[in-house]
Amino acid sequence: MGARAAVAGASGYAGGELLRLLLGHPELEIGALTAGSNSGALLGDHQPHLAQLADRRLLDTTPETLDGHDVVFLALPHGRSAELAASLGSATLVVDCGADHRLTDPAAWEHFYGGPHAGAWPYGLPELPGQRERLRATRRIAVPGCYPTAVTLALAPAFAAGMAGSDVVVVAASGTSGAGRSPKPHLLASEVMGSVSAYGVGGVHRHTPEMEQNLAAVAGTAVRVSFTPTLAPMSRGILATCTAPAAPGVTAGALREAYHAATAGEPFLRLLPEGTWPATAMTTGSNTAALQVTLDERAGRIIAVIAIDNLTKGTAGGAIQSANLALGLPEEAGLPLNGVAP
Amino acid sequence: MGARAAVAGASGYAGGELLRLLLGHPELEIGALTAGSNSGALLGDHQPHLAQLADRRLLDTTPETLDGHDVVFLALPHGRSAELAASLGSATLVVDCGADHRLTDPAAWEHFYGGPHAGAWPYGLPELPGQRERLRATRRIAVPGCYPTAVTLALAPAFAAGMAGSDVVVVAASGTSGAGRSPKPHLLASEVMGSVSAYGVGGVHRHTPEMEQNLAAVAGTAVRVSFTPTLAPMSRGILATCTAPAAPGVTAGALREAYHAATAGEPFLRLLPEGTWPATAMTTGSNTAALQVTLDERAGRIIAVIAIDNLTKGTAGGAIQSANLALGLPEEAGLPLNGVAP
Amino acid sequence: MGARAAVAGASGYAGGELLRLLLGHPELEIGALTAGSNSGALLGDHQPHLAQLADRRLLDTTPETLDGHDVVFLALPHGRSAELAASLGSATLVVDCGADHRLTDPAAWEHFYGGPHAGAWPYGLPELPGQRERLRATRRIAVPGCYPTAVTLALAPAFAAGMAGSDVVVVAASGTSGAGRSPKPHLLASEVMGSVSAYGVGGVHRHTPEMEQNLAAVAGTAVRVSFTPTLAPMSRGILATCTAPAAPGVTAGALREAYHAATAGEPFLRLLPEGTWPATAMTTGSNTAALQVTLDERAGRIIAVIAIDNLTKGTAGGAIQSANLALGLPEEAGLPLNGVAP
Amino acid sequence: MGARAAVAGASGYAGGELLRLLLGHPELEIGALTAGSNSGALLGDHQPHLAQLADRRLLDTTPETLDGHDVVFLALPHGRSAELAASLGSATLVVDCGADHRLTDPAAWEHFYGGPHAGAWPYGLPELPGQRERLRATRRIAVPGCYPTAVTLALAPAFAAGMAGSDVVVVAASGTSGAGRSPKPHLLASEVMGSVSAYGVGGVHRHTPEMEQNLAAVAGTAVRVSFTPTLAPMSRGILATCTAPAAPGVTAGALREAYHAATAGEPFLRLLPEGTWPATAMTTGSNTAALQVTLDERAGRIIAVIAIDNLTKGTAGGAIQSANLALGLPEEAGLPLNGVAP
Repeated sequence: MGARAAVAGASGYAGGELLRLLLGHPELEIGALTAGSNSGALLGDHQPHLAQLADRRLLDTTPETLDGHDVVFLALPHGRSAELAASLGSATLVVDCGADHRLTDPAAWEHFYGGPHAGAWPYGLPELPGQRERLRATRRIAVPGCYPTAVTLALAPAFAAGMAGSDVVVVAASGTSGAGRSPKPHLLASEVMGSVSAYGVGGVHRHTPEMEQNLAAVAGTAVRVSFTPTLAPMSRGILATCTAPAAPGVTAGALREAYHAATAGEPFLRLLPEGTWPATAMTTGSNTAALQVTLDERAGRIIAVIAIDNLTKGTAGGAIQSANLALGLPEEAGLPLNGVAP
Repeated sequence: MGARAAVAGASGYAGGELLRLLLGHPELEIGALTAGSNSGALLGDHQPHLAQLADRRLLDTTPETLDGHDVVFLALPHGRSAELAASLGSATLVVDCGADHRLTDPAAWEHFYGGPHAGAWPYGLPELPGQRERLRATRRIAVPGCYPTAVTLALAPAFAAGMAGSDVVVVAASGTSGAGRSPKPHLLASEVMGSVSAYGVGGVHRHTPEMEQNLAAVAGTAVRVSFTPTLAPMSRGILATCTAPAAPGVTAGALREAYHAATAGEPFLRLLPEGTWPATAMTTGSNTAALQVTLDERAGRIIAVIAIDNLTKGTAGGAIQSANLALGLPEEAGLPLNGVAP
Repeated sequence: MGARAAVAGASGYAGGELLRLLLGHPELEIGALTAGSNSGALLGDHQPHLAQLADRRLLDTTPETLDGHDVVFLALPHGRSAELAASLGSATLVVDCGADHRLTDPAAWEHFYGGPHAGAWPYGLPELPGQRERLRATRRIAVPGCYPTAVTLALAPAFAAGMAGSDVVVVAASGTSGAGRSPKPHLLASEVMGSVSAYGVGGVHRHTPEMEQNLAAVAGTAVRVSFTPTLAPMSRGILATCTAPAAPGVTAGALREAYHAATAGEPFLRLLPEGTWPATAMTTGSNTAALQVTLDERAGRIIAVIAIDNLTKGTAGGAIQSANLALGLPEEAGLPLNGVAP
Repeated sequence: MGARAAVAGASGYAGGELLRLLLGHPELEIGALTAGSNSGALLGDHQPHLAQLADRRLLDTTPETLDGHDVVFLALPHGRSAELAASLGSATLVVDCGADHRLTDPAAWEHFYGGPHAGAWPYGLPELPGQRERLRATRRIAVPGCYPTAVTLALAPAFAAGMAGSDVVVVAASGTSGAGRSPKPHLLASEVMGSVSAYGVGGVHRHTPEMEQNLAAVAGTAVRVSFTPTLAPMSRGILATCTAPAAPGVTAGALREAYHAATAGEPFLRLLPEGTWPATAMTTGSNTAALQVTLDERAGRIIAVIAIDNLTKGTAGGAIQSANLALGLPEEAGLPLNGVAP
């Protein structure tokens, strides 16, 4: 057993998923569990599915309780990580599941989040070109947003191959755990079951600039994304339908070839057999992204569809995948490849 | 009590919804109920929610059993309606919920459905310009597909106002009742619950040419649609996110004004208050379409989102709405405006 | 259009269902809509499925706003109705959907609710022996709880026929709307979907004495009920499995005969055909109770299973049914007999 | 890596869960995967969540394909195992997830299943008194049914302590995966979502005699069970509410003490903290049973509520737990203790 890991925000959904994965991690030991208003409670009161940790007590989230760990996972509302990271010292690996350090452009931060920009940290998406090297050399990691994880993985191969143009249109369905655990009327089961709804429509969702940043980095040129999220009656999962204009001359065969090449050797990217389209149930509880792509020749658009578990590959699994790299562990350590279905 | 209505295909989901609405219709009396392989059974065995018709016996679907009615609703697999309609005579109103007579272009029919084209009937979407007059004068009605109903209602105002360009991208989520009642593995509850999946991706869904036909008629020019349907874990409802490039100079205010004008006076089109986005639960069991629109100025796209009940406004309610016109009845007769929620 | 109806608590689930039904009621006109903390808002913000009332403004719940109506429906937390009813005067029909006036035994009230007992009003379950006459003659009605409605309707025929003994065991599953609209963590969609849970176990649920009161009245002797409620991942519906020891000599045939006799002529009690067991989907949105009974000869128990919509027959529909009687209207007025399915 | 395991019936739900668990088992290697009508297909076509086995080909289920393994898991319709087991030889561990060898009483078999009784095998519920020793010494294991697993674990402590009487009443809710993967109309998502339904009512469910057999063995006297199963809108999970008359003089404290004693040291039995009641989500994907008990003093009944994952502890996990014992492996090997939630 090598490194010791603390989880700040252990009573929320992202925190719970971090703990579920850490419980099965061969090289990481669970240290302090901290919370905000739930501090003092037993973890079992908030994460009753984590039988092995039911009797652990939640501490306050402070520099002191988080001190003395090799890695600290932050699953907190945004705005908290910069200060905590400063107090933890540069030898501690800090993995921030929040938004604070994802965007490199202060203007984009300002526009979508408001307030001062805390600066960018290395971006925890190992599948991006050159990113594994950066992650192996850092003690600060910004875990991507759940939607940007899905959309970037779905479209990066097309942009990397120069096959996609800039007028990207994405519509994604998310399970409710992506909206967190604070009780809000629109998240009540009575409201959600039997209903799909749209929200954050019209280019205002905060994950939009993050998608654009990622795709632009791959494309080498600006990419404009129209992004519409929807809420679906399920607890977990994101299904993102991602479309981009096909560059002139792109063929279905060449497109598929590019996706084969881009996903070969990637442990968590699974290009489905031709004719099979992703379902979120394929990925529930796993760190795998299930991906499919086709060319709509009539419409002149590339259509890439991807399914991930928003809490696993989209948050906690992605966090641990990047942390593994930074800690010099096998990238796949502790990360399920297979889903729980049906 | 005026006219007498038969329902062919009464044991399926569309047939059941037709009967539910007809039971509340002040001017239509329910006559023969027919089925295919379920012929001979009691309706209560297949539609146990229709308490008032539980003891009605299902007859064979033949010209003889359907004879002698003022209106015959066909809720059958495609390929059956032309022959049945011929046998029923031109004085009987025949309302076909299937696809046979929706497309005007034989080549589109051939491409998407295969086999010979049965010819187009007046299209049962009264909200299209000039369509009410055509429906008042016909004895044959082709009920629109559920997805084309949603997409056409969502984008027609923008195209009618010259505000939208041709590169339309639509992603829609549908409840499972849209896939019918034949037991298929992917429609099992165990597969569907907790999962959103894509299907018919890449421009191959048969509703695509119908959307293009409708929007082109409104726009006065060809419109290309990239359409991706998804299956969501709910029984009823469609939420369609419909985007189109904004024409140069379009403003958010002008766009909203166009939608106000287009929906004013329409009994079943409800433009939601600004800031409220559609949820399918708003429309469950009702013939109302809940609609919202905005301009994504960064992406240069109009985003219209619409919710309908696929079985009501998307099939059976739309059928009765058009039948009301053809029969000289009030267009709203027997059609709920309010949904059943939560 | 005869009487004018106010709804207090119009922004909650029971209030919304009252309004949905009143919108389809041929003899009742909707008057004041009042709320607590949501006062001042538009109804459309809270009940977006009620398209026809979207622009109605919510008033404060006061004697003044409720004054001047023929009937006032109270859908409020318990403890409010006695005072409001006193202020409304004895000529106004007051229909209380809360618990305050259901129990006749002050000791039972004290034990299960605490605090002083407000006194019993005529109990709004017309299917109980002699109850229609009482309801026709009153201006105060206590609407039964949702679970007691189901359990009483399921077992009353057996007790009335002297076929059932006192050791009743009931386990019921309810949809989440029964728990109301206040956002609580355990009612979040993420918690509820994919999960059935027990609560209020061990004889502590407040609906227990109400069931005992009803069954004892029918049986003419004390009846003890072990009641366990569970929460199921659906918005609406109660399925109650109700078992009681079979009296010596009871046969399956005699039992069925007793249920036939007890349900014959009852507009909202539907004894299903032999071999068909209730599903809540049969009753969604309707005022019908779907009922089945059998004799478990090995175990010596009568098993009666019933499905109702907790918001319709279990609350708002039951309220209107009783109000119809008190107002001299047809008992079925405005009450759907058929469900919305699938 | 020690033993090699075959799975017969690998394309069904039980087979898929066996494979999911075996993929994480440190001591078992996956050998042949066989199927019936799906023979010849890739596993990925039927179990798309099992990314690591997607390219494995399904073989026919024959003595030859199953030959040469240390352990063979049978996840087949009942009636197949006796013959296959005979062909596999007595040195091979055969673990039958079907019903054939669960009942010791031929008359009970005949009454509930019909046809000749194949004889009983050691019963794979290690938590029963003395059962671990039997399982360590056998090469044939009958895996318990999912409902009997739940009910036996819930009530055995009370019967073992002499605290419970014979008139047991159980009502259980199950997810749809318990009904298998054959497409049947009542298992369609459209039918199941939003609905709880009863089935197999009146003492006719085949799991009833198995419950009675288990409880009688613990009690040392005959136990009569009234069992009603219901189908809930979720894929996985059983919540069983199990009640039995309390013996005279039983107190809440003594009851709880008995449950503490009975569950202490049991790796997969989790007695929840007082006041916390089971939810199936606590156990999704895990081999843990979450249990709570109380005394309803008014009704004179013990109420034990238990949640399990029907596919894990209720089938595949239970099978592996018993196989571990028979193979001399640690009982917990490869079996998750923590659930996947939300």
